[in-house]
Amino acid sequence: MHHGTTTATQPPATTGRTGLWLVGARGSVATTATLGLAALAAGHAPPTGCVTAAEPFDRLALPAFDDLVVGGHDVAPTTVVKQAEALADAGMIPGHLLAGTRDALAAADAEVRPGHDPRHHQGSQQEAAETLAADLVAFRERHRLDRVVVIDVASTEPPLDPVPEHDDPELLRAALLDPDRAVLPASSVTAYAAVLAGCAYASFTPSAGMTVPVLTRWATEAGLPVAGRDGKTGQTWLRTVLAPAFAARGLRVLSWAGTNLLGGGDGATLADPVAARSKLTSKNRGLRDLTGTDVTPLHIDNVPDLGDVKVAWDHVHVEGFLGSRLTLQTTWSAHDSMLAAPMVLDLARLLALAHAAGLAGPVPELGYFFKDPWGSDVHGAAAQAVELADWAGRTADAVARRP
Amino acid sequence: MHHGTTTATQPPATTGRTGLWLVGARGSVATTATLGLAALAAGHAPPTGCVTAAEPFDRLALPAFDDLVVGGHDVAPTTVVKQAEALADAGMIPGHLLAGTRDALAAADAEVRPGHDPRHHQGSQQEAAETLAADLVAFRERHRLDRVVVIDVASTEPPLDPVPEHDDPELLRAALLDPDRAVLPASSVTAYAAVLAGCAYASFTPSAGMTVPVLTRWATEAGLPVAGRDGKTGQTWLRTVLAPAFAARGLRVLSWAGTNLLGGGDGATLADPVAARSKLTSKNRGLRDLTGTDVTPLHIDNVPDLGDVKVAWDHVHVEGFLGSRLTLQTTWSAHDSMLAAPMVLDLARLLALAHAAGLAGPVPELGYFFKDPWGSDVHGAAAQAVELADWAGRTADAVARRP
Amino acid sequence: MHHGTTTATQPPATTGRTGLWLVGARGSVATTATLGLAALAAGHAPPTGCVTAAEPFDRLALPAFDDLVVGGHDVAPTTVVKQAEALADAGMIPGHLLAGTRDALAAADAEVRPGHDPRHHQGSQQEAAETLAADLVAFRERHRLDRVVVIDVASTEPPLDPVPEHDDPELLRAALLDPDRAVLPASSVTAYAAVLAGCAYASFTPSAGMTVPVLTRWATEAGLPVAGRDGKTGQTWLRTVLAPAFAARGLRVLSWAGTNLLGGGDGATLADPVAARSKLTSKNRGLRDLTGTDVTPLHIDNVPDLGDVKVAWDHVHVEGFLGSRLTLQTTWSAHDSMLAAPMVLDLARLLALAHAAGLAGPVPELGYFFKDPWGSDVHGAAAQAVELADWAGRTADAVARRP
Amino acid sequence: MHHGTTTATQPPATTGRTGLWLVGARGSVATTATLGLAALAAGHAPPTGCVTAAEPFDRLALPAFDDLVVGGHDVAPTTVVKQAEALADAGMIPGHLLAGTRDALAAADAEVRPGHDPRHHQGSQQEAAETLAADLVAFRERHRLDRVVVIDVASTEPPLDPVPEHDDPELLRAALLDPDRAVLPASSVTAYAAVLAGCAYASFTPSAGMTVPVLTRWATEAGLPVAGRDGKTGQTWLRTVLAPAFAARGLRVLSWAGTNLLGGGDGATLADPVAARSKLTSKNRGLRDLTGTDVTPLHIDNVPDLGDVKVAWDHVHVEGFLGSRLTLQTTWSAHDSMLAAPMVLDLARLLALAHAAGLAGPVPELGYFFKDPWGSDVHGAAAQAVELADWAGRTADAVARRP
Ligand SMILES: NC(=O)c1ccc[n+]([C@@H]2O[C@H](COP(=O)([O-])OP(=O)(O)OC[C@H]3O[C@@H](n4cnc5c(N)ncnc54)[C@H](O)[C@@H]3O)[C@@H](O)[C@H]2O)c1
Ligand SMILES: NC(=O)c1ccc[n+]([C@@H]2O[C@H](COP(=O)([O-])OP(=O)(O)OC[C@H]3O[C@@H](n4cnc5c(N)ncnc54)[C@H](O)[C@@H]3O)[C@@H](O)[C@H]2O)c1
Ligand SMILES: NC(=O)c1ccc[n+]([C@@H]2O[C@H](COP(=O)([O-])OP(=O)(O)OC[C@H]3O[C@@H](n4cnc5c(N)ncnc54)[C@H](O)[C@@H]3O)[C@@H](O)[C@H]2O)c1
Ligand SMILES: NC(=O)c1ccc[n+]([C@@H]2O[C@H](COP(=O)([O-])OP(=O)(O)OC[C@H]3O[C@@H](n4cnc5c(N)ncnc54)[C@H](O)[C@@H]3O)[C@@H](O)[C@H]2O)c1
Ligand code: NA
Ligand code: NA
Repeated sequence: MHHGTTTATQPPATTGRTGLWLVGARGSVATTATLGLAALAAGHAPPTGCVTAAEPFDRLALPAFDDLVVGGHDVAPTTVVKQAEALADAGMIPGHLLAGTRDALAAADAEVRPGHDPRHHQGSQQEAAETLAADLVAFRERHRLDRVVVIDVASTEPPLDPVPEHDDPELLRAALLDPDRAVLPASSVTAYAAVLAGCAYASFTPSAGMTVPVLTRWATEAGLPVAGRDGKTGQTWLRTVLAPAFAARGLRVLSWAGTNLLGGGDGATLADPVAARSKLTSKNRGLRDLTGTDVTPLHIDNVPDLGDVKVAWDHVHVEGFLGSRLTLQTTWSAHDSMLAAPMVLDLARLLALAHAAGLAGPVPELGYFFKDPWGSDVHGAAAQAVELADWAGRTADAVARRP
Repeated sequence: MHHGTTTATQPPATTGRTGLWLVGARGSVATTATLGLAALAAGHAPPTGCVTAAEPFDRLALPAFDDLVVGGHDVAPTTVVKQAEALADAGMIPGHLLAGTRDALAAADAEVRPGHDPRHHQGSQQEAAETLAADLVAFRERHRLDRVVVIDVASTEPPLDPVPEHDDPELLRAALLDPDRAVLPASSVTAYAAVLAGCAYASFTPSAGMTVPVLTRWATEAGLPVAGRDGKTGQTWLRTVLAPAFAARGLRVLSWAGTNLLGGGDGATLADPVAARSKLTSKNRGLRDLTGTDVTPLHIDNVPDLGDVKVAWDHVHVEGFLGSRLTLQTTWSAHDSMLAAPMVLDLARLLALAHAAGLAGPVPELGYFFKDPWGSDVHGAAAQAVELADWAGRTADAVARRP
Repeated sequence: MHHGTTTATQPPATTGRTGLWLVGARGSVATTATLGLAALAAGHAPPTGCVTAAEPFDRLALPAFDDLVVGGHDVAPTTVVKQAEALADAGMIPGHLLAGTRDALAAADAEVRPGHDPRHHQGSQQEAAETLAADLVAFRERHRLDRVVVIDVASTEPPLDPVPEHDDPELLRAALLDPDRAVLPASSVTAYAAVLAGCAYASFTPSAGMTVPVLTRWATEAGLPVAGRDGKTGQTWLRTVLAPAFAARGLRVLSWAGTNLLGGGDGATLADPVAARSKLTSKNRGLRDLTGTDVTPLHIDNVPDLGDVKVAWDHVHVEGFLGSRLTLQTTWSAHDSMLAAPMVLDLARLLALAHAAGLAGPVPELGYFFKDPWGSDVHGAAAQAVELADWAGRTADAVARRP
Repeated sequence: MHHGTTTATQPPATTGRTGLWLVGARGSVATTATLGLAALAAGHAPPTGCVTAAEPFDRLALPAFDDLVVGGHDVAPTTVVKQAEALADAGMIPGHLLAGTRDALAAADAEVRPGHDPRHHQGSQQEAAETLAADLVAFRERHRLDRVVVIDVASTEPPLDPVPEHDDPELLRAALLDPDRAVLPASSVTAYAAVLAGCAYASFTPSAGMTVPVLTRWATEAGLPVAGRDGKTGQTWLRTVLAPAFAARGLRVLSWAGTNLLGGGDGATLADPVAARSKLTSKNRGLRDLTGTDVTPLHIDNVPDLGDVKVAWDHVHVEGFLGSRLTLQTTWSAHDSMLAAPMVLDLARLLALAHAAGLAGPVPELGYFFKDPWGSDVHGAAAQAVELADWAGRTADAVARRP
């Protein structure tokens, strides 16, 4: 492949200073991650909710929280500070943490560059991607970072209709150069930019991103680790905890019905049934695989008065011994971004490790973090947790043994 | 040790015809297990809810369902058939399955012998145990069984106050021989009888049973595998599925409050706060271990109109990132005996395997089935499931390699 | 108006023998009502769930349960007996009640006549209505009934698009006579037949039925009491119990989100999003009126494995003092037809009273029974209960004072 | 009766400036009421959650919110300001409201006098009551109030064991004068003080307070309106909304099981099983009356991490038509003091009205506000709401017609 603005460099053998580049840097998840990172680094809060802060990951050589430097792309004018204020007013972020991290938030916002906005873009998608990639390279150089991990936490896009260009490098390259064509959604232009800039990449959204086959291939060829997609933070996580447990008991799930209520930015986006379709598809995939039933009706409702609180109700109908029936209902209520943010930090640390180890292409063992795990068919959370811990240990050992 | 009526014979190298001796044979769990076994053996129902009927256990040489022969002890006059009719009237057991298993239930009831009833017993506890052991031996011989597995599914007893006799073989032996003393509860007299008769043993109740230290020692010396205690079938199982999942996420459980509603025989027994204490203790042990919090208020209420349906509500309060809070509520509703019965059958098959393999003393890997696992500190259901599968595979291999 | 086959006669002054004509006579609700009526009449079951069996209605001169004679229309071939067997197999109807009512069910099925099926009908809608009306008249005469109450419990139809004919008697009359036009849905052809036959009428479905303005006018002119629409039996009833209670506290409902799971015939019908639209509209109308919020997302999912069980979850988000927030969640689980059937019997008795009292047109005080009460803006269940009791007392007095 | 420090004066014919004297003035409920009153009076918050701010009460001549002056008794040193800060830190009270009401809180705290603390009191209970009464009289005079309403929102006391003194004025008078005896609990000493000072009185706690028969008689003789007991704010209110609705449907409640989780001051108090007994008794009384079942197991658990949030789960098991079963579960989650505070303000306004109207003794129509309504057997919330509105209208008319 050709690399517009950079070449994939041989990753250094340590996991040193790492850039965390957030696409959607001014959104709710990104702001919470940025604020949280500053609070952790300053010792104002413990790393509760971070997988990598607990056993066995805490024994591994991952970049420390205060080795992470934040920047990102966004298309909205509201600054990270303003977003944090709004989240504090809504009761999600405690006032004293906001007070203690204002400077760090302003510093992060100073690193935010205009994202790719298809509605206003002029010129070819190749140009768009190169502009984004240049931002990444400049960020890496400006802060003398060992590496940069790009994480997409931008608004969910509608499902992508496949076209031949997605599967054929030549066709795609040609289309990218044609200013009159736009064969990639914004999330995939961004993913392509990460490849061009030689960055590790993760997609925390259900958007297409790196799933366009040619992009995955180019990332692999460039020796870049990638992971996705759609953060498994709440209801879906819970389902992938429970479903394998029923299976282990020999109990047969007949139906698994659910509903989600949420407000905030994500609620407003998903109020659009087309955008919601991406999300619903990725939420149900693992469940069907784990249970064998396809009676899994699921809804997402925009309930603005809930703000960033997500409430999810599930009703599981199960067949037991001698045709008997049992039901399990769960109600989950949580600040959605508070679940997502520590996982974003985890991914930054673990993809830094993967990059240091020279891994290329989808990292299946990072499936723990995703509703729709790239490169993996394992959906059960307990099995994924074991896989993740094994992988991280093995990979850290490999990096350590490097000359 | 001295063996009143038998000696522990070298177990045969196969897992052939196995006796399943149910203490509390006319209770709800035992009746459901007996009826279910007959229905499975006759092909009237699939083995839904049996752990050992699914992968990877279905590939192992365990006794087949129709290799199991049922007998038992009870102190109640209501026959197994009458109990089954009552459960069918209450809507728990489908009419057609009752119709198809009446003969098998009558046959099982013909194998029921009077249990040890401390209120009416005259003579020493040694004599009581020998009488019970003789029933076991006669059962094994009458049906030419390769081995007998005793499973205690009798009414829950109040917690046992420890006395020196429980820890000292000499003292215990002397007390057992003294007709004026009764240092063991009924469940432990029964456990002792299993040892005397050379039977594998499991306790599905929170009663003391084999937990008296000297009894465990005698069982081990006699080369008998034992497992317990208190079947982990519903709410507690669910908790041990969920709690490790929170821990893996780095989320901190602040409190886990719950309540149980049930009717039926077990509900009536547990309406006695003293009996309930045994149950509550064993229900909370694993939870505290898994979460690190001791704010785990829990109640059991007798709600007669629910019959055998157990309804359990849990409220989990969790601290997440930056001090945020999330709640999970679960409501579980199931016919309790329908959950327990297939696990009783699983235990019979797996203890037959353990006996065939010559294992002696507590089998920690059977902890999957129990709220308070003997010989193990592992409480998480997913970890236990992995342990169980590994153990069963290994043990079956060992049996197969026998000359 | 012209009356094809009958004229509205002056109703007799007593509430004597009453026909209950069920449109959808072989459906789940109708079968349950028919079986229940037989069980009540035979003294095999108490009238639990019948509003009119309790205070203060039990003191009024309403037709006795054994004064009700059942007949009806349906388009399905499955007999009432077969439907009852299916409901018994599914665990909804107890076996002994089915056994004790088989003859009554067969007798009722013998009174079932072919309903109006638009897909197969040939000829004008006037002819169709007259055929149905002739069935009603023949039923009344065959059984020497004082009066007949028609209750529509047929499958929910899609929402009706209004046309000028619905508002203009001349236009409607002309269209009805034209064999090439079909301006009324089946439910309204049936409602028209009730008018033609001089029968009281209630609509337990969300279908258009008597809501076509000209039909209501003709019913009123014919001196016939009518009531509707869409039985308020479960979730909606619960909402109209709770919403006024919040209002009385000065608490402000911000959002009321809900979901419904059900199987059975109704579940299958409502799996069609167009049919579900009628239902969702009528479910939400009262709620918005009572709470003042329009954030009331609501779903109906077809979950076949639940059979006739309806499970409904609601999440109510409320603003309290000083901007504080409270939530109420409710989970309702019930056999839907078991809720509807006794209300159908109540309506038969109360419409017989209304007819005996000579009331014409919509009876607003029967709004208690309906999601979308004709002639009334009162939605609160407690206020409706008071209105209903007052009305029934007053009306029974008026009938009693008749010469 | 003899009045130590005052005589009951003829109440003036208007409802003018009113003192609100809170027993337990520094507790959570009192602080929230005080802060809320200041916020309402200053126009910083709407009166959401106040019954008397909505129809039809808003048309009546009740004392305006800014006609209420707050004082009270307490035995704790923490000031109202400190308590409010704690509640703000816990996320219950919004920061901006605290900022805007600091002065008012400090002013209220300056009106707090030492309450009666039996552990430290020396001298007779008559002396204790007279000291408290003198505080009330001084408060009334200092602020030139038309009247004072005393509301007990102090910590719940254990149930009171009856003694003959409680029923016999002569015996009680003698005991009160005896420095070596303490026949009244603190709450009743306080209630007696209200009588001595000629104040209207309400008990928002389950404590004995005015329920000592001789005290009620003295209050009546002194022409003072009294109301109680135990504020019906959350779970119990919900139950008395639902239970009458089931009854109106002819549905039969079989069992109603529930559990409560709460932290805060009230949680800590009720962690004592003896204190909890008072609460549980008063919570279940109405429910049993309304449903006819006595299967109403109920628990209160102290869950400190919930703070002032009360979470209540109920499971209602109901028999419907033909012996069918339905279940309703409810989960309620609210800041307890935010529910109570506006009702405390309502009671102040309504008791001022009652006092202005010259009503003496228990006011049954205020039963709407209480779990255990004095002078009334009506428990259903909807019926109580109608009674309350009628009474308030009638009473306001009577006051207005005064010369
Ligand atoms: N628990 C969770 O919060 C969770 C879990 C899984 C997935 N996600 C996903 O994470 C994403 C972010 O969620 P959120 O709550 O922060 O949403 P949000 O609406 O608050 O933030 C999204 C941000 O993306 C920006 N954006 C939109 N298009 C962009 C583009 N082309 N380039 C750069 N920035 C762009 C927006 O301006 C906004 O600032 C969503 O896709 C959501 O589905 C969140
Ligand atoms: N899901 C479950 O059902 C479950 C889960 C865990 C544990 N358990 C335990 O299983 C046990 C059985 O439950 P159940 O619902 O069948 O109860 P049950 O009351 O229906 O049956 C208990 C039986 O034990 C008999 N019994 C009492 N004392 C005896 C004695 N000394 N010797 C022999 N028999 C005696 C009784 O007569 C009765 O027939 C209980 O201890 C229960 O706590 C059940
Ligand atoms: N709790 C409740 O069950 C409840 C509450 C409110 C409303 N409803 C309404 O009651 C109706 C009946 O519900 P169900 O569960 O018995 O449904 P069902 O599907 O079991 O029965 C409907 C019956 O109507 C018959 N039918 C269809 N079209 C007809 C026609 N044109 N003429 C005559 N018969 C016709 C069908 O053949 C079927 O036998 C539905 O509209 C439902 O929405 C039920
Ligand atoms: N929704 C509700 O909050 C609700 C509902 C019904 C009843 N209540 C009752 O209201 C009362 C107050 O609840 P809270 O949450 O404010 O409790 P809290 O513990 O926060 O406050 C109680 C206050 O009473 C004070 N006190 C104790 N003994 C006293 C005495 N002898 N004289 C004067 N003051 C005394 C304490 O010092 C404390 O300041 C409790 O009895 C509770 O049961 C509250
Ligand atoms: Na209406
Ligand atoms: Na009373």
